[in-house]
Order: sequence, then structure tokens, then C-alpha cells
Amino acid sequence: MAQSTIRVGIVGGTGYTGVELLRLLAQHPHARIEAITSRKETGMPVSEMFPSLRGRIDLAFTDPAQAPLDRCDVVFFATPHGVAMAQARQLLAGGVKVIDLAADFRLKDPAEFERWYKMPHACTDLLAESVYGLPEVNRDAIRRARVIGLPGCYPTSVQLGLLPLLEPAAGDLIETHSIIADCKSGVSGAGRKAEIGTLLAEASDNFKAYSVAGHRHWPEIRQGLTAIAGRPVDLIFTPHLVPMIRGIHSTIYARLTPAGRDADLQALYERRYAGEPFVDVMPAGSTPETRSVRASNFVRIAVHRARGGASDTVMILVVEDNLVKGASGQGVQVMNLMFGLPEDTGLNQVPVLP
Amino acid sequence: MAQSTIRVGIVGGTGYTGVELLRLLAQHPHARIEAITSRKETGMPVSEMFPSLRGRIDLAFTDPAQAPLDRCDVVFFATPHGVAMAQARQLLAGGVKVIDLAADFRLKDPAEFERWYKMPHACTDLLAESVYGLPEVNRDAIRRARVIGLPGCYPTSVQLGLLPLLEPAAGDLIETHSIIADCKSGVSGAGRKAEIGTLLAEASDNFKAYSVAGHRHWPEIRQGLTAIAGRPVDLIFTPHLVPMIRGIHSTIYARLTPAGRDADLQALYERRYAGEPFVDVMPAGSTPETRSVRASNFVRIAVHRARGGASDTVMILVVEDNLVKGASGQGVQVMNLMFGLPEDTGLNQVPVLP
Amino acid sequence: MAQSTIRVGIVGGTGYTGVELLRLLAQHPHARIEAITSRKETGMPVSEMFPSLRGRIDLAFTDPAQAPLDRCDVVFFATPHGVAMAQARQLLAGGVKVIDLAADFRLKDPAEFERWYKMPHACTDLLAESVYGLPEVNRDAIRRARVIGLPGCYPTSVQLGLLPLLEPAAGDLIETHSIIADCKSGVSGAGRKAEIGTLLAEASDNFKAYSVAGHRHWPEIRQGLTAIAGRPVDLIFTPHLVPMIRGIHSTIYARLTPAGRDADLQALYERRYAGEPFVDVMPAGSTPETRSVRASNFVRIAVHRARGGASDTVMILVVEDNLVKGASGQGVQVMNLMFGLPEDTGLNQVPVLP
Amino acid sequence: MAQSTIRVGIVGGTGYTGVELLRLLAQHPHARIEAITSRKETGMPVSEMFPSLRGRIDLAFTDPAQAPLDRCDVVFFATPHGVAMAQARQLLAGGVKVIDLAADFRLKDPAEFERWYKMPHACTDLLAESVYGLPEVNRDAIRRARVIGLPGCYPTSVQLGLLPLLEPAAGDLIETHSIIADCKSGVSGAGRKAEIGTLLAEASDNFKAYSVAGHRHWPEIRQGLTAIAGRPVDLIFTPHLVPMIRGIHSTIYARLTPAGRDADLQALYERRYAGEPFVDVMPAGSTPETRSVRASNFVRIAVHRARGGASDTVMILVVEDNLVKGASGQGVQVMNLMFGLPEDTGLNQVPVLP
Repeated sequence: MAQSTIRVGIVGGTGYTGVELLRLLAQHPHARIEAITSRKETGMPVSEMFPSLRGRIDLAFTDPAQAPLDRCDVVFFATPHGVAMAQARQLLAGGVKVIDLAADFRLKDPAEFERWYKMPHACTDLLAESVYGLPEVNRDAIRRARVIGLPGCYPTSVQLGLLPLLEPAAGDLIETHSIIADCKSGVSGAGRKAEIGTLLAEASDNFKAYSVAGHRHWPEIRQGLTAIAGRPVDLIFTPHLVPMIRGIHSTIYARLTPAGRDADLQALYERRYAGEPFVDVMPAGSTPETRSVRASNFVRIAVHRARGGASDTVMILVVEDNLVKGASGQGVQVMNLMFGLPEDTGLNQVPVLP
Repeated sequence: MAQSTIRVGIVGGTGYTGVELLRLLAQHPHARIEAITSRKETGMPVSEMFPSLRGRIDLAFTDPAQAPLDRCDVVFFATPHGVAMAQARQLLAGGVKVIDLAADFRLKDPAEFERWYKMPHACTDLLAESVYGLPEVNRDAIRRARVIGLPGCYPTSVQLGLLPLLEPAAGDLIETHSIIADCKSGVSGAGRKAEIGTLLAEASDNFKAYSVAGHRHWPEIRQGLTAIAGRPVDLIFTPHLVPMIRGIHSTIYARLTPAGRDADLQALYERRYAGEPFVDVMPAGSTPETRSVRASNFVRIAVHRARGGASDTVMILVVEDNLVKGASGQGVQVMNLMFGLPEDTGLNQVPVLP
Repeated sequence: MAQSTIRVGIVGGTGYTGVELLRLLAQHPHARIEAITSRKETGMPVSEMFPSLRGRIDLAFTDPAQAPLDRCDVVFFATPHGVAMAQARQLLAGGVKVIDLAADFRLKDPAEFERWYKMPHACTDLLAESVYGLPEVNRDAIRRARVIGLPGCYPTSVQLGLLPLLEPAAGDLIETHSIIADCKSGVSGAGRKAEIGTLLAEASDNFKAYSVAGHRHWPEIRQGLTAIAGRPVDLIFTPHLVPMIRGIHSTIYARLTPAGRDADLQALYERRYAGEPFVDVMPAGSTPETRSVRASNFVRIAVHRARGGASDTVMILVVEDNLVKGASGQGVQVMNLMFGLPEDTGLNQVPVLP
Repeated sequence: MAQSTIRVGIVGGTGYTGVELLRLLAQHPHARIEAITSRKETGMPVSEMFPSLRGRIDLAFTDPAQAPLDRCDVVFFATPHGVAMAQARQLLAGGVKVIDLAADFRLKDPAEFERWYKMPHACTDLLAESVYGLPEVNRDAIRRARVIGLPGCYPTSVQLGLLPLLEPAAGDLIETHSIIADCKSGVSGAGRKAEIGTLLAEASDNFKAYSVAGHRHWPEIRQGLTAIAGRPVDLIFTPHLVPMIRGIHSTIYARLTPAGRDADLQALYERRYAGEPFVDVMPAGSTPETRSVRASNFVRIAVHRARGGASDTVMILVVEDNLVKGASGQGVQVMNLMFGLPEDTGLNQVPVLP
């Protein structure tokens, strides 16, 4: 059921995923933003906080309690973890769909959620009903869903990087317990928060790993890969901070099985993603760069047989814009699916290079 | 005379203004790129050089001698200085319009052109006919033009910053011989050229002035301001290099006359630019930032009475994206005017922030 | 009176001027850091907060109330404004000299201090006694001083840029009420504070002016220039934020008098700064870059007659490292003077380029 | 045999390793630069090309044919590959020691050299005599050497990261054929060469892998690790380009053997590097950042048991400044050893942070 105009609400619009949603929805031909909330900034015009939206978004932030969210068709939560699950039930009761950009509906196991996010889950029935919003994996379920947990930025890149190798149809191509995802992200992934560690004077002209003892995206990636493979998958996940604003580059290593060594992996990836509007398998030998997808919903992937070491290793390079395909763009893609629109509606921006 | 599809040729598409033209035209609903030339890269798919265009531009670079430019409605020259003036006559003879992003049709005085660009002008009659492509000044002439000299990046920002103060209708508001334009540009303004000075390892974490003894945009600005004012205008112009990719910030100082001191300058600017689709006069007290127009065709302007010093000084802050309003976006805006399209067709991208 | 080892205390060592002091003092042959205080980080090893100091500084932060500051020869205050003036009297009474990197002893007029810093001055007698720590102006007074107000980062660059033109001995070379200082600073000037505006995702790939309605360094510059000239001097001061870590570039414009037009300004600057260990007058025509002084105590200056506009304008370009000559390096230079050491002791680091 | 002053020659001083050598030697108490050559820049004062050296280096570049290299005690080659091997024999014959910062004396197998550097080796006897200049491995041999092949920047970090695990004395701790070195470098590693790929407008706000099909440092690392282990070692080596000037971060993964799983790896590293002046083993759980060694000769290492995936994996994080410990600083360290000076002479700069 396509409809001419989707009425959209945004809860928590003052962060980077919020302003990116606004940027994308302002260019979406079938979406109309009904309300955008912020507890702290109630009354402030959105374009005063984000001058890039002057002339494009005329709304002011409204108090969450006052916002007419129940009159929306869909509400995005661009909030800290824990907010969406507190409000989802009431919205759904009123017929409003929910897309959460935070983690409330990502981890299917409530105990796992509590372990990593330090709070009990507030609505385990909705968690069970919710759909993990990765269209390349769950397109049909997304179309029918009422509640979406959007994947994290790192998990999107790692899952899309490994998907063709792990799907049961591909056979037994890689060892599933020795995967390494060495991932690098721009600092916007840390959010628009006043913190010393991501100041320009700290993070610029610098490079480091972080959260190596355990990052919240690790259980999510493991869950996603396991779901894709239909059998347990485990991995080492090492996030690093890159002195740039946007972009994730995942360098993924996996050991090939004998079957994997014989397979034409390039062809496998090209075939698997042939119909995907936002996944670009690059020619053999390519090294994708993050700027080639900057400000767009594309993911670009290159597949390599690693030189040296065990020659039985496949290396997959994946780039995405963490704020678009890694967050808000994927949210719009999911919304399009939920409302019967062509999947790429409003998402045809050409990447900004240079 | 609007037409459904404008056939576009691009001569010299391997630089930054070239790839930016491609980005904008790929999203333009009424333009079709017929040919893009490069002597050096003949045969290479455009998307191989610029992976950001994979799936969006299917053309390969063609040899300039072979390109079907005469079948185009308009040809953009994104070339070094001197190329457009050598080819314009033949194209015009075939009914093809010409928009030059280089300097061949900027300086009206051939002697001045030769002094600054170290080559004689090849077609002074076309130079006389050509129109300086700044829509906010020359909109009607642009509509009727066959040959356009697009303004330089710095000149666009300085002229738009001073326009309301200098137009005769405004009266005698500022002293016209003591203007200072202290301008700062991202490094993409230097072009996509293999040079040591703009390497990341040289230009990053660094700031400097350059070309203070004389920059080619200085006579262009002077000419433009003089044309706007209808009387001689002179200025000091100091360009600086900012360690960023895109963006120009011009900080302009002018001494107010007694009439200027009495005028409501904020109102003057708002009134003057009220109908302009791409010029945004910010509220009093604002300090525009370059990222607020990143990857968009907007210019944002703030007007201040300078504190300290002579209180009779007005300070104007102007930001633009040097590759969009400072080059290729302005080119598309001009093309729209020349072909009877709404001026903002294909130029509605929301600035990318962060 | 030179002495073999100067016992140094640092109050507030967790900011950028603090860690820079530590870097410099760790390499100083005649300084020994006795104590470094931090209310918040009491007990934390300094090298845990700043791993760059591992193996070089073995101290931990101590509680300000417990620190043996009275056993020091000199105490640096690398604190927010207002701290030094609250503690100076007691230290001085115990024979400890005080060097304040904040603003407590910069503005000589207590009313002016209160106007700009929003607090009454706590010890106006010490303020009257204190010396403004710019060695190129006040070298002898610094040698004899007990309390030093170190200049701000912008004021150091602007005053050194204008000093030769304004000193009475030079005659009447420039108009003293129409000076413009268009200044650009790296973000470390904003301090090591958790703030959104200086996040890498906000400040990188961006350029803007700020505090144009009035920056606290403006009255300080005006006071300093007036003191140098021996007559009232006024100026417009416009600070801008550059996406880099360290460095200030001041572009200063002043109108020449007839005498100034006839003067050999290059020679004037070279002569004035011939004996200065940290001021480098570059050859005529130079454009100094901030990285040429990165991590060093040097200031580099170039003098230009501005092209265009009134040819009666002199333009001075000044670069410094805001954390060294603009703060902590100048502090060490002043300390050397106060304790009879060669002025450049411990300050001979070669700038880090690239 | 210590001597009061080492007379130093530098061949090829216009690149980044050249200017870094100059920075370090200008602060070295026992070195005097006798000559610095450049074919292209003969006659230009060094400080004109590198204003950071104004007042510190008074030499001009001299023609290689004219330079009094034979009067030096040691000559550094900061040249493209192939230059040192052409000149080494003559210098050695005159009693001059040679330290090559390029690759001429890195790969011990002339065939391997030719395969990777596309030129035959010019002096295989000297190659056989030469010592690989990694002090932590070859300290004694370096002391006695006449010709040094300094390690590449990546190889230094990877070898120091793996050294304690691979030395025979440590036993059989890791699998030696499945090591992965996922390395990230700032762009100064690409040298001071006019190339499009490392322009700020290309490499800034961007991240990518490169040379994944085979980088010249791969055979060097393999050779070095094999020499350390005394048995064949192989690895996958993936270099990436980080938008920063200086710094290398290597993230190294290795599978532990049963013995390795039982070992106290933190203690092993601390013990192994206890006496090393420039290798800092950080506390367990640390994530070193490149800026913590910026502009210094330090390497910092952290050892982790990887979470997830096979829990039998060790992850080593290594940071260095590619121009100091990865090139010129290591060269000075080696020179100190060769001339009987304390190893850290002239290398005590505190890292520059922020």
C-alpha cells in the first residue's frame, strides 16, 4: 500500500542521526515531518541549531510530551538507548509504526540486551515482534513490520561484508569461528556529545583502537551473522577511531574452507548483490575508499584473496557512510519498504567527492 | 523556451569542477550528459576515476577531437585557462552555447586578461559578447547569452557580500577605495593537480596566506565591484589556505560613509536578497560557517558593525562551497537560466552537515 | 641571580597549557616540577592522563590544598580565570613567584577586568604590581617581577606584529584607530573542555568567525598596543576558528601615514627584532605558515605593502604556536628571565614539520 | 669509541625523512651536518625550503657531485631506492659509514630485492655485509657495522610488536603462518612527492586500504620475523591510509598455541623491553594512540587477548611516529650506536600532544 505522503515524527532530533534524518527527509518526495522533539531545546527552530537546514526545515523542536506523535504514520527514535522501548507500545497502539535508530530492538535476547546496555528491557514482547532492519537480509519481514530495530553502523558494514559467504545457500565457504573484523570509523559515530575524547584537538592527527575489551556492536554482529548463517558464528571485532567526520571502513578476514578456496568469490558477491540498490560490488582488485560513499546510502565492497600468510584467507573491504547506510539512510530505506514505496525513494544522492 | 532535456557536453572532466558538475548533472532532471572529454584519460570510464559516480555516470572519457560536442545544447569547459576561448567560436557557430568555468571570459579587458593569464586573448569579439555568469547581478543577460564566463570562487563570495552596499540604488554607503577582503579557502580551490604544496602532509594542520603579491581573482573582483557600483571600486584581497576540502569564508571590511552609518544594513541585505533562491541573509549577530553550505549551492551572509577600531566599519561574513556556488553549481544555475528552467532545478541538495 | 634548579609548581595541569608546560619543563635543564595540582584528578599519575609523558613525568596530580606550593620558587597557574588572583597573595608572602597563564593579571584596569570576565578583581594591589609578561616589550620589568600576567595567545601575535610600527621611536607611521586584526586560530585555543563546538565532527572541514561581537582578547590587545605606542590605539579584532590543532595566524592591516609610506618597513622590523631570540622577521615577500613554528616558541613575521585598495596600507602576517609562544613557552621564557637564566633555556626545540 | 663530534652528510635532503633528520640532528649535541645534497635544489638554503629550520640550519643544498661527503664520518641516504647502493662502495672505501633510509640494504636476498624494487642490486657483497638497523634486534651488529639498511616504517612497528612472541627463547607461543598485520599510516609515509592521491582534497576525510595485492614492506617484514624466530614466519599485511600527517598504528593478530594460551604475555613483553630506551609496554588494557609518540622516537605497545572469535588469539597494538622511530629517529639511534654514544643522545624530545 503506497501512500502519497508519509507523516513522520522524530524523537530526539539534536544528534547526528537526527540531523541526517532531517537532511534526507527534506529531500524525500513522499515524507512530511510532522514533529521533531527535544526535551532540552523545546521551542528552538531546528534551523537555528543546524543552519544547513535554513529554508528547508521550518519546524521548531517540540516538547516530547506535547508532540503530536500519535498523528504520525511512523516515528523515528534518534535517541539514547532506552527511550524507544519506553514509548513504542503506546505508539503502536495508536497505529504508529516505530523505527529505532538506537539499540532497543537490536539484540533479540533480553538478557544480552541487559548485559550490554545496563538496563532491563522494557517490552520483551515487542522485542520479539520487532524486525532487525537490514533490508538485504530481512526485506520481506521489514515490509510487514510494525517495529524496527535499525542495525548499528559497524554491524551493517560487517554483515553486508560477510553475507554472501555465510548464507547457507553458498555452502560451507569459511571457518565461522575465526573471523576478524578490523573496523575503522569517523568520529561522528561517537555522536554529537560534549566529550573530550572526540575534540578536534584530541582526535585529529591521531589514530587509535578503542573498546577492544568489548564493544556493544560485537554481540549484535555475532547475532546477525549467526542468523544469516543459520549456525553459530563468532568473530573478533576491533573498532578504531579515524580522524575524519563520516565513514566506516571494515577490513574483514576469514579463513577459507577447501570449498571456499575453490569458489569464485568475486562472482558469488556480484551475483548475490546484483539486485540490491545500495550494495556495490567493486571490480576484483579494488580498494574502496570511504569518500566514495560520503553522504550517500551506498555500501561498496571489494573481495580479495589475502597475499601471504595462509593463502586460504579471504579479505573483504567494506565502506559505508556511518550516518547514512549505517543509520539514517538505512532508516529511510526501511521506511520506504514499510510504506510500499520504491526502496530508493529520496535516497538517490550522489556521493560527495571530493 | 524550456525544453525537456538539455544535451550537455563537458570538456575536461577530470578535475574537481568536472567531477562536481557530474555529481550535480547526474541528479538534474532535465540534463543528459552526451560527452565528457579528457585528452589523457581517453577511454577510461568516468566511474573508474571517480568511484563515487559508479552506477550514476556510465560514460567514458572521450578524446576531445572525437567528442560529439556539436550535438550538444551546451558545453561546459572545466579546463585550464585558454581552452574555452580556442574552441568557443566553432561551437557557437553550430548553435552550441558555452559556459566556461575557467577565466577566459571573466576579464572584459583583453589587456588585463593577458597581463594576469600570460596569454593573448584568442577571441576578443566573443569576449565582448560574453556575459559574466553571476545570476544575482546579470540574470537577464544570462538568459539571453550564448557565452558565459563563470565567476571565480573568491569573486563570487566577495561580490555577493558587497552587492547590496555598492548598487547605486543603495546610495553612497561605503568608501569604495578602502575595502579589505580577507578570504579563506579550502584546498580543493587549488584544483586536482599533483603539487607538493597541497599535499595533506603539507597543508593539513597548517594555515597561511598566499599570493599576497597579486592573485588572479583580484582584478576580477575589482572589475565586478566596479560594474556593480557604476563607479571605480578598489580593494585589498588576501587569500588564505584552510586545511579543509571545500568552502570559502570571506571576511570583508568596508568603511561606512555617514549615510552608511545611518542605514539599516541588515534590512538592506534582507530586502536585496529576498527573492534570491541561493543567497541566505542570516539573522543579525550570526557567524556563518562553511559547513552550513557544504555540497550545496547556497551562500550565507552575515552583516556586522565592527566592534572597536573605527566604529564606522561594516564587516560582512560570507560562506559558500567553492566547488558549488563558487564553480559548478553556479554553472548549473546559469544553464537553467539559459534554457528557461526554474533556476534551482537540480540544485536542491541540502547541505551535508556534519 | 641564576640558580641551578628552579622548583616549579603547576596549579591546574589537566588542560592544554598545562600539558604543554609539562612537555617543556620536562626538557628544561634547570627546572624541577615539585607539584602539579588538579582538584578532579587527585591521585592520578600525570602520565595516565597524558601518555605522551610516560617515562618523562613521574608525578601524580595532587589536591590543591595538599600541594607543597609554598616550597616552590615559582608557581604557574594553568587554570580558569579567577584562580590565580585568589591564591597569589599567600604564595608571594612565602616568597614564591607567580606566573598566571589565565587573565587575572592581564587587564590593568579592574573595572575592565570585571566587565570582560564577569567577576570583581580579588587583589587590585597585586594587579597594579604585576607585570605583563611579553618579554619583547617588558623584559626588564619581567626580570624584577614577582607576579606575571602572561599575554593571551591572540594578543601575543598582534602585539608582536605591530610593535615596530607603534613604538614612539619609530615615529608616526600608521593611523592608530583603523587597525584591523583578522586572526585565525587552531582549536586547541579553546582549551581541553568537553564542548560540542570544538568536536572534530563539528570543527573539522569547516571554517568560521566567532565572538565577533566582542572577544576578551580585544581589550587586552588594545591596552597592550596603547601601552606600546604611548597614545590611544584602537582596532577591530576578528577571531576565526581553523580546523587544525595548534597555530595562530594573524593578518593585520593598518593605514600608513605619509611618514609610514616613506619608511623602509622591512628594515624597521629586521632592526627592531635583530636581538630577539624568538622573533623571526622573514624576507620580504614571504608568507609564513603556522606549521613553521609548530611546537616551538618562535614567532615569524612578514611585512607587506598591500596591493590594491589604498596602496597606503601595510599588511603584517604573524604566525605563532598558540600553546607555546602564545602560552606555555612564553611562560618558560618569562621564568628564565625571572631567575636569571639565558632566555632560551629549554626552549630550543626545532619546529615539527611536517 | 666515542668522539666529540660526528661529521654527518645527508644525500637527498628535500623529502620528509630528510627534513626530519635535519630537525633531529640540529638538536643533537655531538653531530655536525657537513653537507646536504639535492640535485634539483642546488644552492637553495635549506631553511628556504623548510622555514621551520630558519636559524637552526645554515647550510644550502649542494650538488651531489660537489658535496664533501668523503670528509664525513657517516652519510645518511634519504633518497629514492637505488641511490645508496650506487654510492656506498666509494664512501666505505674512504672510511665513511653509510646509513640508508631507503630499501637498498633491507632485503638480504638480491633476487627478492630485484623482484620488489624492479632493479638489480648493485653491490651484493655490501648487501651481505650490511646490517639491518633495528637496534632492539641487532644492537651489537649495528655497533660494528659499516653499512646499515634502516628498516621501513611499517616493518619497524610490526617486528617490535611481535618480537617477544617470536624469539626462540620465548618458546612456541604463536602459530607462525597465520599472522595478520592490519596497519594504518599517516600520509607522510608516502613521501614529499607531487601526487594526486595524497593531496589534502583527496586523502582528508577519507580512509582506505592500498597496495593490498603486495606492498614492498611485506617481504621485509617476513624476512625480519623469520630472522627473529629462527624459523619461517608468514603473515598477511594490509596497509591503510589515515588522514593524518604522522603516525603508524599496527593492529596485529596471531593465534596462540597451547603454550601461548598459558603464558603471561603482558609480563613477557614488559620483561623483554625492560631495558629498551624507546619501547614502552603499556599497562594491560591500554589502547595506545599515535599522538602519544608524535615527533618522538618512542614506540608504545599494548598486548590484548582478543575477545570473541577464537579466544586463542593475541592482539598487539603498536604505535610509532613513522618519520622518527619509523625512519630518521631510528637512523640517529643507529648512528649513536655506531659511534659509541649513549643510544638516546639527541633523541629525548617529549612527544607533542596535543
